[in-house]
Amino acid sequence: MLRTHTCGELNISFVGKNITLSGWVQRSRDLGGMTFIDLRDRYGITQLVFNMETRPDLCNAARKLGREFVISVTGIVIERSNKNLKLATGEIEIDVDSLNILNESALPPFTIENNTDGGDELRMRFRYLDLRRNILKENLELRHRMSIEVRNYLDSLNFMEIETPYLIGSTPEGARDFVVPSRLHHGEFYALPQSPQTFKQILMVAGYDRYYQIVRCFRDEDLRADRQPEFTQIDCEMSFVTQDDILNTFEGLSRHLFKVVKGFDPGAFPVLTYDEAMRLYGSDKPDIRFEMTFGDLTELVKGHNFKVFDDAEIVIGINAEACSEYSRKQLDALTDFVKKPQIGASGLIYLKYGADGSLKSSVDKFYSPEELQKWAEVFNAKPGDLILILSGSANRTRKALNELRLEMGNQLGLRNNTVFKPLWVVDFPLLEWDEDSQRFYAMHHPFTSPKPEDINLLESDPGKIRANAYDLVINGVEIGGGSIRIHSKNLQKRMFQLLGFTDEEAQKQFGFLMNAFEYGAPPHGGIAFGFDRFCAIFGGSDSIRDFIAFPKNNSGRDMMIDSPASISEAQLKELGITFLNPQKQ
Amino acid sequence: MLRTHTCGELNISFVGKNITLSGWVQRSRDLGGMTFIDLRDRYGITQLVFNMETRPDLCNAARKLGREFVISVTGIVIERSNKNLKLATGEIEIDVDSLNILNESALPPFTIENNTDGGDELRMRFRYLDLRRNILKENLELRHRMSIEVRNYLDSLNFMEIETPYLIGSTPEGARDFVVPSRLHHGEFYALPQSPQTFKQILMVAGYDRYYQIVRCFRDEDLRADRQPEFTQIDCEMSFVTQDDILNTFEGLSRHLFKVVKGFDPGAFPVLTYDEAMRLYGSDKPDIRFEMTFGDLTELVKGHNFKVFDDAEIVIGINAEACSEYSRKQLDALTDFVKKPQIGASGLIYLKYGADGSLKSSVDKFYSPEELQKWAEVFNAKPGDLILILSGSANRTRKALNELRLEMGNQLGLRNNTVFKPLWVVDFPLLEWDEDSQRFYAMHHPFTSPKPEDINLLESDPGKIRANAYDLVINGVEIGGGSIRIHSKNLQKRMFQLLGFTDEEAQKQFGFLMNAFEYGAPPHGGIAFGFDRFCAIFGGSDSIRDFIAFPKNNSGRDMMIDSPASISEAQLKELGITFLNPQKQ
Repeated sequence: MLRTHTCGELNISFVGKNITLSGWVQRSRDLGGMTFIDLRDRYGITQLVFNMETRPDLCNAARKLGREFVISVTGIVIERSNKNLKLATGEIEIDVDSLNILNESALPPFTIENNTDGGDELRMRFRYLDLRRNILKENLELRHRMSIEVRNYLDSLNFMEIETPYLIGSTPEGARDFVVPSRLHHGEFYALPQSPQTFKQILMVAGYDRYYQIVRCFRDEDLRADRQPEFTQIDCEMSFVTQDDILNTFEGLSRHLFKVVKGFDPGAFPVLTYDEAMRLYGSDKPDIRFEMTFGDLTELVKGHNFKVFDDAEIVIGINAEACSEYSRKQLDALTDFVKKPQIGASGLIYLKYGADGSLKSSVDKFYSPEELQKWAEVFNAKPGDLILILSGSANRTRKALNELRLEMGNQLGLRNNTVFKPLWVVDFPLLEWDEDSQRFYAMHHPFTSPKPEDINLLESDPGKIRANAYDLVINGVEIGGGSIRIHSKNLQKRMFQLLGFTDEEAQKQFGFLMNAFEYGAPPHGGIAFGFDRFCAIFGGSDSIRDFIAFPKNNSGRDMMIDSPASISEAQLKELGITFLNPQKQ
Repeated sequence: MLRTHTCGELNISFVGKNITLSGWVQRSRDLGGMTFIDLRDRYGITQLVFNMETRPDLCNAARKLGREFVISVTGIVIERSNKNLKLATGEIEIDVDSLNILNESALPPFTIENNTDGGDELRMRFRYLDLRRNILKENLELRHRMSIEVRNYLDSLNFMEIETPYLIGSTPEGARDFVVPSRLHHGEFYALPQSPQTFKQILMVAGYDRYYQIVRCFRDEDLRADRQPEFTQIDCEMSFVTQDDILNTFEGLSRHLFKVVKGFDPGAFPVLTYDEAMRLYGSDKPDIRFEMTFGDLTELVKGHNFKVFDDAEIVIGINAEACSEYSRKQLDALTDFVKKPQIGASGLIYLKYGADGSLKSSVDKFYSPEELQKWAEVFNAKPGDLILILSGSANRTRKALNELRLEMGNQLGLRNNTVFKPLWVVDFPLLEWDEDSQRFYAMHHPFTSPKPEDINLLESDPGKIRANAYDLVINGVEIGGGSIRIHSKNLQKRMFQLLGFTDEEAQKQFGFLMNAFEYGAPPHGGIAFGFDRFCAIFGGSDSIRDFIAFPKNNSGRDMMIDSPASISEAQLKELGITFLNPQKQ
């Protein structure tokens, strides 16, 4: 080894020892008679000292070292006169007696500090320098720790990690597939898996009863800020289980992670039905770090000649506690917020419950104080509170009020990223109707089973069927989702019909699964967690990109290696493919 | 849970308990008054008993159960009168009092037994049934156990698992890449990694000093019997290390696996140089479960008017101990073996050292008994031994004698697959000259560093340079290989020149790595293990396919899902691609 110790482990107990360290020059300070260098490696920073009087040769060499040079030094651990107790190694320094430059470094295009001066694009291009920053290193360490803990926990419950193939077939239901042209079979393609869904179900048919895999998944979607074309799932499946068994098992996994990684037990997770979540929060992934649940005024407000409310499908609001002193300017800003196109409310009504007990609303002329009092009671409002009300069509208004609630949570400091509030959302609808294509889509995926008590709605009112489907939500972010699956060939066939597949299409894409169901498929179900997002939440961040070693940018490009890129004519010829519009290349 | 216990855990201590089991009908025997069913799950087999006298309804239902039906039963654990002590559950059976059919099964196309009647192709098509066989289940359990142990061992040494991207750029040096057309950037492609080589080196530049990953790799090669287009590597890299540090660390990992998975410690691994391995075994992956090393007769045999030997570049042989009684027929069969085109020797010379001390050779007329005695001494032969001799050009003859040695090892039962003999082979040549293309190829890969003491040969005699490269070989199979890498931009550039790259080509394909070397790259090196093969060796098998849940066949096709396959016109249009020879589709 080109070192005897790391830059993070030496302390006062090593004083007098002769040691060798290797690492990067983080910082150097030349104080005339002495030169100090902070030497950095993955484990920490250790101060090196070079003395001009005793070793002018070494000191002069040290002065020439640039930032990020890689060096190896040997010397004696000595006690510092000027201790830095914030640093694990802050009580000692190394009196260097030999210096070896292992590699030089050009001047980095940005500083290797948590608060760097480098912009996003520059840092992605020089990702190897960005990854040297402590904050990113801690993110990847967190990720490693979580993956080890996930595996050991599931292993202890007899789950087997089984690798499923990455070169599979294209199943364009759902998101777009990335495809891989076959050289041996011109005109044919593999596809990269959007998830190992069908393979894990096949493993249940094969009798493997407790499967998991930390696995890469691929979706060729138009990228939003926080999406990546490749991402990682903790993918799990179990046989001979009910929905409760799955919730218990993976609540256990999640609590284990909270305990060993974050050092606290969040307790039993609350369970909300999809309908409750939509009614109370207007969202199927509510942030329950704060209350501020929806109140419904629809019945109370009708018939008072206020046309906006009379025409509305629903009138709902939230109580922003202790905000009755909000100024006109603040209320105008909230009105502007809800009227933004991506939120889409047409206006905002407020009711101020003054500290003096007075009730003042923006629609005073339509409603008496007694009526406003009844509104306040819906929200259990107290003097000093502010009620914010939206109205309109049900779905759109709930969605807008959800956004307003989250905004108020932000403004009131109720969304602290060191507080964690997980919950289960259950009983999702099986199907969603799409007006554009005039067909049903599976809300979860086509393999999700209907609730047995709703199966009679299959022919009469499929949109009303609830599924044995569930999501794990933490702090308003969907971290995982799953379902009890269909394990009967006939029900699976019927499901594909509902989704507008012809029997031939269903057979071509999913025939292997339906055939497998003919040979003794056990009842089974599972769940998948977005591992990048799970890590980001634990790291207190909104951005999954900071928890992936080599992420792609918003147009799916790896800036460091400059990929995708053109390939050679010879490669294209071997694959037998060419381009539709070569002039556009 | 649809069970209280598994089919592998009930024993005499459970007698009298009321339990529920779920599983598959393995076998059923109808003895008139009683029906016995062997119920199977992942954990074992438990016998169910149905009594016609006490529960005719249940017994009749049980008689109708077919093989591989999925059932759930509740009943009382009772002691068997007729115990089967070979089975963990063989002392008990279940007196069933309720039976629930969870799913029916069509008759499987082959038997679910270790010795199945199903052929390869049928079993791949119905992989979910093949995977139910105990032998395959044990293989996948071994694989899971090995992956858990690899991770925990490396984690304990401060290695971090870091996921590298699967959508990268094409680098056609080496094997062929699988490529992925980009929808957002028509005419451009991602490629799937042949290994994370450049990314793990980038991680070393980024300061992550101990990296590993159990990772899928992809090579679009014409498939040989035991190759898969996607396969799994244990990929590792370390900074601030010498070759010895790598060998020590990963010998430690391998010994750990032997200890915890196979239950024994193979001891310190011998180290052979490439030159020694070629001289003694004619192979850079020698099977050292048995000796039978090569002896060199070249100098002894020349000048005796035996033209075959006089014209030969080398004359070498092996000593098959205690085989002097081989018959003419056996010797003819060995001659036929070495003359097979894939082995390519022109003939086989033997020397029998009779039990009576006589020496008899197929070339008696050219050599005196005294001369033959000298031959025998080269091999330390004793009375009763048989010496087998090949001659010709050096490379071809060594290769042929290696095959003959392995064949003799097989014939003499010296290649027992429950015996494990690992070794390191080191000091590989850096470059191989290819006559066809009249250029050098990197023997390991272009990032491998030359031995410092050989660097002076770079300009004068590059073919002679030895590399800091090493392989781990177990029982004649290459399980892992790696090298100390180049970490200087200039040396890496020079290496690409030697390999026939123009500077532009090198910059286009590997510029990101060479640029990274300008910003403080530490000395580093690593190794990668073929995980599928590692598992197969541990499982005592030659075939990696039996250790992969969903392997592809020899033409790269997944028989179960029938992939690759055609994709829709709409998908092709979105990708902007078409085919060169559409009439061939």
